[in-house]
Amino acid sequence: MSVKDLGKLAKSASIKMAILGSEEKNQALRAVAEALLAKKKEILEANAKDMEKAEENGVRGSLLDRLLLTEERIEGIAEGVRQTAALNDPVGEVLWMRTHPNGMTYGQKRVPIGVLGMIYEARPNVTVDAFALSFKSGNAVILRGGKEAFETNQVFVKIIKEALSSAGSIPEAVQMLEDPSRETARELMQLNEYLDVLIPRGGAGLIKSVIENASVPVIETGVGNCHTYVDESADLEKAKPIVINAKVQRPGVCNALETLLVHEAVADEFLPAMLQELKENGVEIHGDERVCSFDDSVIPATEWDWENEYLDLKLAIRVVPSVEAAIEHIAKYSTKHSEAILTESYSASQKFLNEVDAAAVYVNASTRFTDGSEFGFGAEIGISTQKLHARGPMGVEALTTTKYIIYGNGQIRG
Amino acid sequence: MSVKDLGKLAKSASIKMAILGSEEKNQALRAVAEALLAKKKEILEANAKDMEKAEENGVRGSLLDRLLLTEERIEGIAEGVRQTAALNDPVGEVLWMRTHPNGMTYGQKRVPIGVLGMIYEARPNVTVDAFALSFKSGNAVILRGGKEAFETNQVFVKIIKEALSSAGSIPEAVQMLEDPSRETARELMQLNEYLDVLIPRGGAGLIKSVIENASVPVIETGVGNCHTYVDESADLEKAKPIVINAKVQRPGVCNALETLLVHEAVADEFLPAMLQELKENGVEIHGDERVCSFDDSVIPATEWDWENEYLDLKLAIRVVPSVEAAIEHIAKYSTKHSEAILTESYSASQKFLNEVDAAAVYVNASTRFTDGSEFGFGAEIGISTQKLHARGPMGVEALTTTKYIIYGNGQIRG
Repeated sequence: MSVKDLGKLAKSASIKMAILGSEEKNQALRAVAEALLAKKKEILEANAKDMEKAEENGVRGSLLDRLLLTEERIEGIAEGVRQTAALNDPVGEVLWMRTHPNGMTYGQKRVPIGVLGMIYEARPNVTVDAFALSFKSGNAVILRGGKEAFETNQVFVKIIKEALSSAGSIPEAVQMLEDPSRETARELMQLNEYLDVLIPRGGAGLIKSVIENASVPVIETGVGNCHTYVDESADLEKAKPIVINAKVQRPGVCNALETLLVHEAVADEFLPAMLQELKENGVEIHGDERVCSFDDSVIPATEWDWENEYLDLKLAIRVVPSVEAAIEHIAKYSTKHSEAILTESYSASQKFLNEVDAAAVYVNASTRFTDGSEFGFGAEIGISTQKLHARGPMGVEALTTTKYIIYGNGQIRG
Repeated sequence: MSVKDLGKLAKSASIKMAILGSEEKNQALRAVAEALLAKKKEILEANAKDMEKAEENGVRGSLLDRLLLTEERIEGIAEGVRQTAALNDPVGEVLWMRTHPNGMTYGQKRVPIGVLGMIYEARPNVTVDAFALSFKSGNAVILRGGKEAFETNQVFVKIIKEALSSAGSIPEAVQMLEDPSRETARELMQLNEYLDVLIPRGGAGLIKSVIENASVPVIETGVGNCHTYVDESADLEKAKPIVINAKVQRPGVCNALETLLVHEAVADEFLPAMLQELKENGVEIHGDERVCSFDDSVIPATEWDWENEYLDLKLAIRVVPSVEAAIEHIAKYSTKHSEAILTESYSASQKFLNEVDAAAVYVNASTRFTDGSEFGFGAEIGISTQKLHARGPMGVEALTTTKYIIYGNGQIRG
């Protein structure tokens, strides 16, 4: 089936989805969770094929691990679907309703967006997560997973569709591109007639390609070149565990720390012990001249180090003369994801909160908290790093729009 | 100056704008209003040059009228700026603030978007309106007005910048492309480094070109192929004035009625008198076969008539067998702006409200109410017909985004 045909199917499913009741949606989601558990074996077999092919193609460590499914991981995925079923349904909420001076009652009601598109990479769990969040919020979704996870994704979508059919629900609400090539991805990016929004999830290259090539509205997600600034007034004992947590707890994720900025007034006191502790945690340090002067093992940082996410046990460190210089560095290199200041100064904290332009700005805490579940929204479809529609972690509410509804009895405009 | 240089200036102005207090912004806006009134003569002279050139180039009636400024119109534009100053400042509102189980306080705060881009056509008043709404909401704006209004726009921007300077404010917050060519417009559409959002305002051709060519986020506005459906249960006496109002009161605007759908059960009773009244109001009718059978002056409608906005004293009329058929026609041809049902049936009204996918869905009222001032938001920068970020009339709040602010005291993620 062509991308256009899939779009047509998804569009017509989205019309039915929009008027589905919460309980109908939840029952269908629970049926999908059951089916995933019942068909673990089939999923693992498909995944084994993907893994074998990936290894043949020389795919390396962390990418292989993202692709891999285990019984436990499948159970986790199914549990995620069940948790999504348990979330509040955002659809149908009337945000406000007023009476116009002429007597009309008018208000704003939350409705599904319609047809969502997702373009993502190797992680097959995104297939199920994206379906569950789209379905919960009353949308149809067109998925374009990575080539590497082709077999696993096919089986996931088959199981989901069968479970929706058996539950008497709308199997057409999930569509997956049959051919995960660049050409079909491009077609999806231009499917304005049927697609209401496209959400790319993956590395910086994928996101950039979608932004450049899409004519449908896009929500940019996930690239996180995150900074933590240790101010001259920071409580240095509090600072160390925050830096370690932000860098080490899960280095491959988008809210992990990538560049540490340190005020020059505390560099001598703070950096030697900090560098030691980072090294003990296996972190490779790239630093400016001042940082290099503390430790021979520090690799001199280049422009590349300030500009990029490592997504790894590596950290760039720079000494700065002031909070203003820290804010300026962040304004230049930040991807506007999560930024933190560690300080005991009231003025510095307020200045940083007001002037740093990012989805999440922290005082005295780890950037690792930028996350749907930590913010209380449940599962997230991604973390928006752009400013339109949704900013930061996007839960089911971010997958809705509104419409104005107007109850009149003959009103005309004067 | 190149488009990129203007972008750089606007970006750096936006950082200062973001932390400007409400009273500082309001004073600056009032100074701009004063300056516009004080320099009416200069504006009229520039406008006369534009008008002369347009007439030489054979520009026709309604376009010429859009370009024309009079003393009264300039007073209206200045009054608009003063009213924008009087609006509530959306910036800085904390939408919610909670305490995380770990003790961090976190919440969502409304902040300016940053740098807005506007691409628009002949109406020079958009230059001032767009500046005022952008400035009020703490944004910098890059304007790309129509070639036809070149002289008027230059003078407007000069007056605004001078007034901002004299008021000790930030004149760089408004930038206008010096060369209103296709090439510079294209550059603006790709200015991802400096531009946070691009809002096109104008005809369907302009909007389409921006959607196809922009890599910056776009908010689609304004094209309104609006329908009104007269149900079999409609109160036909109420229906007539609603149809006349929606079509005739201001036929050139986007929320004006373009296609009337009539249930076949009431066609005989409703249409003859309705057609008569439309004709008396100077409306040219394009109808399907059934409509043609009532009146020889009706022009047979073609696919074009269902697909397009007339923006003129013309109306397409079609007889449909059911509310479902009406909803289907609307789903096929609507631009998702404003749609109305006229009915006394509770079920039909609810079905239409739930199933029609548009920014504003009406029962028993004129579609002409889809408007920022009618909905109580004050002036609007446009009417969004897409589903992301803002849908329907966009006031100053639609020109803001949010950021999460987090107050910790050493929290790390477990």
